[in-house]
Amino acid sequence: MALSNSDKIKQLVSAQQQGFSLGQAFYKDVDVYHGEINNIFLKHWLFAGHVSQIPSVGDYFTFEFDTESVIVVRTPAGEVKAHMNVCRHRGSRICLEQSGSQKSLTCPYHAWSYNLDGELISARNMPDDFARSENGLHKVKVELLGGLIFVCLSETPPSLAALRQDLKQIFELFGMSTMKLAEQKSYRIPANWKLAVENYQECYHCAPSHQEFAQIHVMAKSPKVFQTAKENFSQANQGNPKFIELNRYFDLAEEGQEGYQYDRNPLLRNALSGSLGGKTVAPLLGSLQEYDGGASELMIGPLSYFLIYDDHMLSYRFLPTSVDECICDVSWFVNESAVQGQDYQLDQLTWLWDVTTQADKTIIRNNQKGVDSRFYQPGRLSEMESFQQSFLNWYLQALVLPSHIWLVQQQD
Amino acid sequence: MALSNSDKIKQLVSAQQQGFSLGQAFYKDVDVYHGEINNIFLKHWLFAGHVSQIPSVGDYFTFEFDTESVIVVRTPAGEVKAHMNVCRHRGSRICLEQSGSQKSLTCPYHAWSYNLDGELISARNMPDDFARSENGLHKVKVELLGGLIFVCLSETPPSLAALRQDLKQIFELFGMSTMKLAEQKSYRIPANWKLAVENYQECYHCAPSHQEFAQIHVMAKSPKVFQTAKENFSQANQGNPKFIELNRYFDLAEEGQEGYQYDRNPLLRNALSGSLGGKTVAPLLGSLQEYDGGASELMIGPLSYFLIYDDHMLSYRFLPTSVDECICDVSWFVNESAVQGQDYQLDQLTWLWDVTTQADKTIIRNNQKGVDSRFYQPGRLSEMESFQQSFLNWYLQALVLPSHIWLVQQQD
Amino acid sequence: MALSNSDKIKQLVSAQQQGFSLGQAFYKDVDVYHGEINNIFLKHWLFAGHVSQIPSVGDYFTFEFDTESVIVVRTPAGEVKAHMNVCRHRGSRICLEQSGSQKSLTCPYHAWSYNLDGELISARNMPDDFARSENGLHKVKVELLGGLIFVCLSETPPSLAALRQDLKQIFELFGMSTMKLAEQKSYRIPANWKLAVENYQECYHCAPSHQEFAQIHVMAKSPKVFQTAKENFSQANQGNPKFIELNRYFDLAEEGQEGYQYDRNPLLRNALSGSLGGKTVAPLLGSLQEYDGGASELMIGPLSYFLIYDDHMLSYRFLPTSVDECICDVSWFVNESAVQGQDYQLDQLTWLWDVTTQADKTIIRNNQKGVDSRFYQPGRLSEMESFQQSFLNWYLQALVLPSHIWLVQQQD
Repeated sequence: MALSNSDKIKQLVSAQQQGFSLGQAFYKDVDVYHGEINNIFLKHWLFAGHVSQIPSVGDYFTFEFDTESVIVVRTPAGEVKAHMNVCRHRGSRICLEQSGSQKSLTCPYHAWSYNLDGELISARNMPDDFARSENGLHKVKVELLGGLIFVCLSETPPSLAALRQDLKQIFELFGMSTMKLAEQKSYRIPANWKLAVENYQECYHCAPSHQEFAQIHVMAKSPKVFQTAKENFSQANQGNPKFIELNRYFDLAEEGQEGYQYDRNPLLRNALSGSLGGKTVAPLLGSLQEYDGGASELMIGPLSYFLIYDDHMLSYRFLPTSVDECICDVSWFVNESAVQGQDYQLDQLTWLWDVTTQADKTIIRNNQKGVDSRFYQPGRLSEMESFQQSFLNWYLQALVLPSHIWLVQQQD
Repeated sequence: MALSNSDKIKQLVSAQQQGFSLGQAFYKDVDVYHGEINNIFLKHWLFAGHVSQIPSVGDYFTFEFDTESVIVVRTPAGEVKAHMNVCRHRGSRICLEQSGSQKSLTCPYHAWSYNLDGELISARNMPDDFARSENGLHKVKVELLGGLIFVCLSETPPSLAALRQDLKQIFELFGMSTMKLAEQKSYRIPANWKLAVENYQECYHCAPSHQEFAQIHVMAKSPKVFQTAKENFSQANQGNPKFIELNRYFDLAEEGQEGYQYDRNPLLRNALSGSLGGKTVAPLLGSLQEYDGGASELMIGPLSYFLIYDDHMLSYRFLPTSVDECICDVSWFVNESAVQGQDYQLDQLTWLWDVTTQADKTIIRNNQKGVDSRFYQPGRLSEMESFQQSFLNWYLQALVLPSHIWLVQQQD
Repeated sequence: MALSNSDKIKQLVSAQQQGFSLGQAFYKDVDVYHGEINNIFLKHWLFAGHVSQIPSVGDYFTFEFDTESVIVVRTPAGEVKAHMNVCRHRGSRICLEQSGSQKSLTCPYHAWSYNLDGELISARNMPDDFARSENGLHKVKVELLGGLIFVCLSETPPSLAALRQDLKQIFELFGMSTMKLAEQKSYRIPANWKLAVENYQECYHCAPSHQEFAQIHVMAKSPKVFQTAKENFSQANQGNPKFIELNRYFDLAEEGQEGYQYDRNPLLRNALSGSLGGKTVAPLLGSLQEYDGGASELMIGPLSYFLIYDDHMLSYRFLPTSVDECICDVSWFVNESAVQGQDYQLDQLTWLWDVTTQADKTIIRNNQKGVDSRFYQPGRLSEMESFQQSFLNWYLQALVLPSHIWLVQQQD
């Protein structure tokens, strides 16, 4: 008799061996994919964007993965709210553009109109017993973290309390809420989303694959060289709040709390920023007074990554569109007072991580091709893939947790 | 244990609530889709084309949906016949073009040759016991209705008797058999076919979505305004056979009879036809002597729609290519004596419904995107969606009827 | 209860009637397709290429079908070896180009490096207990047959002993190991691979579909004309080793031996080669001293076909990419001493079979379209399709053999 989906997934998870890459089914099986959407993408906090993207009442942007689309909007009260982009009439998408500004959220199909808070305010020719109050847009949880907008599609999201407390001074130091979005690029990758996330999580491939990155970041060196450089760098900056280390990632997170991670790593030689030749590319962020020759790694929740140089910040997120395709969204943020063309040039700002992500796109595509072979088998991980190993451990546990109960009960 | 397909469909149908749009599975599930092909597209009469498209012996066109292709051809006896476009040898398509003219139907692969009546007349080097007489093309039922060619792929199609009798004078009035095809356009829509049909069946969306249409058709107004205008229009034309009303659509059809519907609706202001500014765009149809400022809605079978202005007629049909894509075919017909470039201009003739269908294509695509969300749930229908509601009721019943037995028994 | 895949396939096979084309499921069903990959493509010897493609140490080319990719490479010892193109670390493809030259096989992702014999020679920062010796590339069986390189992905391939002995003098006669690859073309066909193979196996379609071929090859004539011409041709050349006939194809192969077939057929009129007007297009092959106005058909294993004119040889192979798409790879070989532009012109050399394969691509696509119809049913085969019938008989048997045990056990 055929296994149920959850039994199949449990079997796959228990067949998985510590210290090895995932089995083929995790990268190809549609039931595994649906389990991931339910147990990971719909349960956790995801980075949607930054407050600078919606400064005025009515400004909105959409945030999309798999079959889902969320509207993130500035309300008349000045709050940031999030609603599902699904009309309560016959289901049409309401906002068709990736961003814009609207007085109300009016469905383009039959003109059902919702206010910016998501309440249904107009629906023509409805039966007498139709209750507008019960037909508002489905609400999505939203939280601001130092100007970063996070959404969670679950009704019972993990707590952000620990993270918020621990990261407060980091948000302030880099002026996270007074940054602005300078550029955004989306990279469509024909591979399972985990191959893209795993690629981001380890620097074992940096030396052979990313010469541009390897000329700037010590992280591309061997573990021994990197650890020594990092220890020296930390010691030289002891007491400096930029150099705290927070290791609450994946299964190191407290029960019920969303995970996070922060540390600061040295750049190579005289590099001051992540750029051609390590040169500065924008004014200093937040309250920083000088360059220290380092870059911070920040992770908020399991799927949102930030890299903070002294003069700009990047966000990295990986969103699946289907079992065999994902999008890597990269955004570049600078001090909100910086003027484009004067204080910074887009091509200089984006060069390093555009060239690196282009290369990764090729790497990841060819990883998927090999993983698709009947002759692929999980391989032993190196010592430079320990963070990825932590992710895999957490991922396998998350996949077999009891499934979420959705806002909207769907027929199976 | 997994449900059988038919049990799954029955459960979905019984979960469906009157007055609400369909559940998500009806727009996404492949088993539902196959049920629809079997119980709807293969059981009912479908509009294939018009006699003016095949005036001479050997003229043919093909009619296609899902995996099926039908050859509709003028035989030496002057009849219109229809055959499956599948060679009885190894299955090749026989007619590769959408239309043409042939002396015989010869398979391009191994040259098996069928006459226009579908009988196998030549097959080289076959074993001695091979019976040509048993290897004719599979026959498809075909009926002419006032020059309109309908096909049914079932061996036991619904009766057209009631429809034929009731619509006789309408066919004559508009000279349906003496029209000619002036233009044809196909719109490929990345959405389930029902979203396209439902869109055509209601004018709740006309005011917000179709300003061009709304400037010509009273139907785009509120039900109250429209009903008053329609009653006045009918009363002013009492006794005129153009103004009969036939409501045998969907479950209002008699047992065993194919459904149909006919009524005439007023245009706005001084509009005479469906065109820019409501101006006339072609000579009057059939035996008409004057413009009356109205347009007739005609439905023949559940899936073929006609809109008849005094000077031209449009046909609308929606054919699935897969569960998530359909084709909307629109044809424009004029009086057969009209001369293109002289009596009518194609761009003027097609303007209104080309612009309207282009807009619908966008609407329908975005409806599918929203319906695909886990947060979509069936929504309450408005008072202006009652005809669509009739379709949905009929559709749900049709879907759970016992499945058709095909001409050719296929392995499951 | 749903049938298991193997029970379903057994049922389909037993429903199949001798003398008729295959049922629809064989051309559409994904489970049948996976059965074919396991029981046919992964069990038998497949033509990968020719020694002339990799003359020097480190020269390689890749050979791909379905999800698999094989590296065929010249080792330092001068041998030809084959390895799976799947890194043992995290599965990346190693060779990304179709051909090239490398000192070692280094994975572009994390730089794990294998020597040309497939042994892992370098992997940075691995745990202490990691055994390089156990992490070489998965080996693929490879055999040379007169310069032709065959691979088999099974660990227990059929024997080539009988074939090797019987074909020895043919390989020598045509100088098979001293040919060189002159041109390669790949034709992507949107159809199941069997429709392409069946098309190649019968000349019932040659007369109606391939006028260029039919002007050169007697084979396009009726069986009677062809048999007479062939007998006369053989008799006139009695004792000439080019004219032996070997019929060990499909189920005529000895138990445990890979099948093969060889015979020589007459060309038409004064044609000397397969070209425009039958004119010669290259220097004579191997030890041949003169043109005899014939062409040899050679089959090695069930899926690799060769056509040998006196002055050039073609190879034909059909490789599936998925259930509904395949690639037809055609290669043209000439005497290794022939100089392009001087002794032969590529356009003249490739003309006949390029135009013929282009035509077949259209034929096969339209065959699939018809086979997809619910109204397709297996049709009676002609007397000119007896070789295809042999293939079908063998294919149906092969499909229900016990499934292969793979090198790498995959989770199901």
